[in-house]
Amino acid sequence: MAVAEFAASTTSQDRRRDPAAVEKVITQLAAVFGNRLVTSLAVREQHGNTLTWVPNQPPDAVVFPHSTEEVQRIVRLCAAHDVPIIPFGVGTSLEGHVNAPFGGITLDFRDMNKLLTVHAEDLDCVVQPGITRKALNEQLRDTGLFFPIDPGADATLGGMAATRCSGTNAVRYGTMKDVVLTMKTVLANGEVIDTARRAKKSAAGYDLTRLMIGSEGTLGIITELTLKLFGIPEAVASGVCPFPSVDAACKATILTIQSGIPVARIELLDALQIKASNNYSKLTLPEVPTLFVEFHGSDAGVAEQSERFGEIVADLGGGPFDWATKPEDRSRLWQARHDGYWAGRSLRPGASAFATDVCVPISRLAECVTATQAAIAELKLVAPILGHVGDGNFHLSLLVDMTDADEVRRAGILMERLVELALSMDGTCTGEHGVGQGKMKYLKAEHGAAALAAMAAIKRALDPQNIFNPGKIVPLS
Amino acid sequence: MAVAEFAASTTSQDRRRDPAAVEKVITQLAAVFGNRLVTSLAVREQHGNTLTWVPNQPPDAVVFPHSTEEVQRIVRLCAAHDVPIIPFGVGTSLEGHVNAPFGGITLDFRDMNKLLTVHAEDLDCVVQPGITRKALNEQLRDTGLFFPIDPGADATLGGMAATRCSGTNAVRYGTMKDVVLTMKTVLANGEVIDTARRAKKSAAGYDLTRLMIGSEGTLGIITELTLKLFGIPEAVASGVCPFPSVDAACKATILTIQSGIPVARIELLDALQIKASNNYSKLTLPEVPTLFVEFHGSDAGVAEQSERFGEIVADLGGGPFDWATKPEDRSRLWQARHDGYWAGRSLRPGASAFATDVCVPISRLAECVTATQAAIAELKLVAPILGHVGDGNFHLSLLVDMTDADEVRRAGILMERLVELALSMDGTCTGEHGVGQGKMKYLKAEHGAAALAAMAAIKRALDPQNIFNPGKIVPLS
Repeated sequence: MAVAEFAASTTSQDRRRDPAAVEKVITQLAAVFGNRLVTSLAVREQHGNTLTWVPNQPPDAVVFPHSTEEVQRIVRLCAAHDVPIIPFGVGTSLEGHVNAPFGGITLDFRDMNKLLTVHAEDLDCVVQPGITRKALNEQLRDTGLFFPIDPGADATLGGMAATRCSGTNAVRYGTMKDVVLTMKTVLANGEVIDTARRAKKSAAGYDLTRLMIGSEGTLGIITELTLKLFGIPEAVASGVCPFPSVDAACKATILTIQSGIPVARIELLDALQIKASNNYSKLTLPEVPTLFVEFHGSDAGVAEQSERFGEIVADLGGGPFDWATKPEDRSRLWQARHDGYWAGRSLRPGASAFATDVCVPISRLAECVTATQAAIAELKLVAPILGHVGDGNFHLSLLVDMTDADEVRRAGILMERLVELALSMDGTCTGEHGVGQGKMKYLKAEHGAAALAAMAAIKRALDPQNIFNPGKIVPLS
Repeated sequence: MAVAEFAASTTSQDRRRDPAAVEKVITQLAAVFGNRLVTSLAVREQHGNTLTWVPNQPPDAVVFPHSTEEVQRIVRLCAAHDVPIIPFGVGTSLEGHVNAPFGGITLDFRDMNKLLTVHAEDLDCVVQPGITRKALNEQLRDTGLFFPIDPGADATLGGMAATRCSGTNAVRYGTMKDVVLTMKTVLANGEVIDTARRAKKSAAGYDLTRLMIGSEGTLGIITELTLKLFGIPEAVASGVCPFPSVDAACKATILTIQSGIPVARIELLDALQIKASNNYSKLTLPEVPTLFVEFHGSDAGVAEQSERFGEIVADLGGGPFDWATKPEDRSRLWQARHDGYWAGRSLRPGASAFATDVCVPISRLAECVTATQAAIAELKLVAPILGHVGDGNFHLSLLVDMTDADEVRRAGILMERLVELALSMDGTCTGEHGVGQGKMKYLKAEHGAAALAAMAAIKRALDPQNIFNPGKIVPLS
């Protein structure tokens, strides 16, 4: 689907904005929020989608709340006038999650960015949704604890929960669904709930926490999160390991996990991505499929894990596996991994980058990556691949010259083919980026009409007016 | 609340059974299912609650389906006649989950008990809901893999998912919410859905898997589950460690987890429970608060973990910590732990046992257990305590002479006080037993009216006729 068609499709939903109602809401908000209510086009455009291929659709106004009570007040006002509300962290989402296809009010959590409480004995903390993961970990440093979820971008915790984000550490520490204990959430009817108690587990009723996580602001507005923390590991070992093929790298990953080695990160970079990273991050790695791995534990533990991993790799014709425990060596390695997106872009200066991800059962991963590489070659496109292979999840950075209509068309074909491939292997159209606007069209194929209807029924039950981030995830028409 | 009052309260819901409709459904089911449709009182009573204090409320008939399609057929028939449906595993739930307060048809999954597929490379398997955890692990043994969730009872996997069960291994392997990848589920409208794909993670829409887990048959009927598996650890070390106080045992637990020692099981038995276990399981343990612990890993890993745990314990005045890696020594220990319920009952032969559980943040656990022991003493009751302390979760076995009305009254007071205590500490009224009928009355205090209303809205959206296990979890009136 071309970009213009896409833009048209996202606005053909079941509601239209009512300028008079929006005007009323803005007037009333301005009276309460003063200069924390902004309507300038520049600021509004910064709050629509600004990354990758989804076109920008700015809201009518942006407001910067300071408390749950203020959010509640805004929700009640918008509900009274049937005006959409879009929550916003720092705008690092990739599928148009923060766009305002029907206008409305964006809630920017910039000012609700505090670490409120650390319960060190319980290994948890309470944060506001606007704190970013790097800021959180900086503030936690003195406690000996850390928050492990790392999507690469310095996203906010509210946004990370809303999109069910994960990233490089997920193979060991899980995704956002695994590390949130409870969230204070404003519902569309203006009520504030806690989705659960702070106890580590509960069997007391429906799992509202997990229902909100990944709902992308369509079911509730998160205003506080209680997060699990982990002790900073005594020792960390990292290493890089080349492989003769994607298949060998994936087999090594499978055997590592089957052996019970608690690998903390295991990342695949394909030959093209290694080439890009060599250029961008001044590395000299052989340009072959490569795993970046990391182990967390005691000194003896990470040494044992690294050695056992080295043995597995050698049996598969990979290696040599060089590993290091010195922080400066490890940082350089992981910086290169995190710069993978920018390294990819450097392969084709001036091109636009379309980032996308899928996830398949790990047994099918090598096949899926290899078939994707073949499709990239067949369609004459440039698209390095990076994967969180311990979870069967990988990313494509499609580098496209947007002035070349035929190339844009071929890029669209590749995106469709990637999702078809993943679904044919019992995989999902997105492992961690989320649905937003960009992947709505795949949900019927992925979940089936009955499951999608169940999601729509839940949406209608909790937000009958469809004021919470309309036009995302579930088609209601 | 006395037992008679309780029974009255559970039938004062918003629907009454219609004998003519039930009759029609039974006639039509009999025509299709032959002798797999049973209406004898003995069998019906076996399918109502048979454990602990909730009175038995039998269904009108029991049917034994063989396939998802048969379940779908039964659901459509019951929906057409507005007749309740109650799913049933082996009946080990403790809060009246399988009772039929409005009559209806119980679906017994006895014959849907197969391990369908093992995906060894993906570390997952597909099972029918009627397989028990012991049968599953026996059938998995040759694969080198195991399924870790262990609630003590040999429950079915369908029941374990429906009640969000956990148990002794949860501190390391999580609860049912963490180990189910997807479930085939029949909805109240007769549609069959897969709650997710088999990929290890996904960000594609609302988390229907986690919504169904813990919904106790009120939102959907589970007919197939895909479960995460784990490699059988190379080495296992277990040990027993006495402590001068509950507080010291809880502190040792907190420090163990904070230190990143990946303890697989850490169970507290209070002095009375140790006395009971000594008698019942022929042990000679000192009658003081005691931790039973287990470590999983490599030979070197479990030795290191055991030694570090021993150091923590010694610093707190506990110990000596004796640990063993020989299977026969470990089995005897864990058999004694699993027999804790029966051991408790042996303290007072002829008494009825009321099992209940709560869960609090681990920092509050010692305080909660100690206050509970004080309440037990004050109320002149006998109630040994067993806890999954790594999760802040503990159980009470209240041993009550049901012919003594005053003792029954005092037992009721203790149950209420236990939940009040847990809630006052940001805990939950049930860590793993579930709500069923017995704990419905606490959900408003735990979640608040707005969250409970959200749960009711979800229930109405997915089961507008309220035919799925009515009278459980959420009051709809």
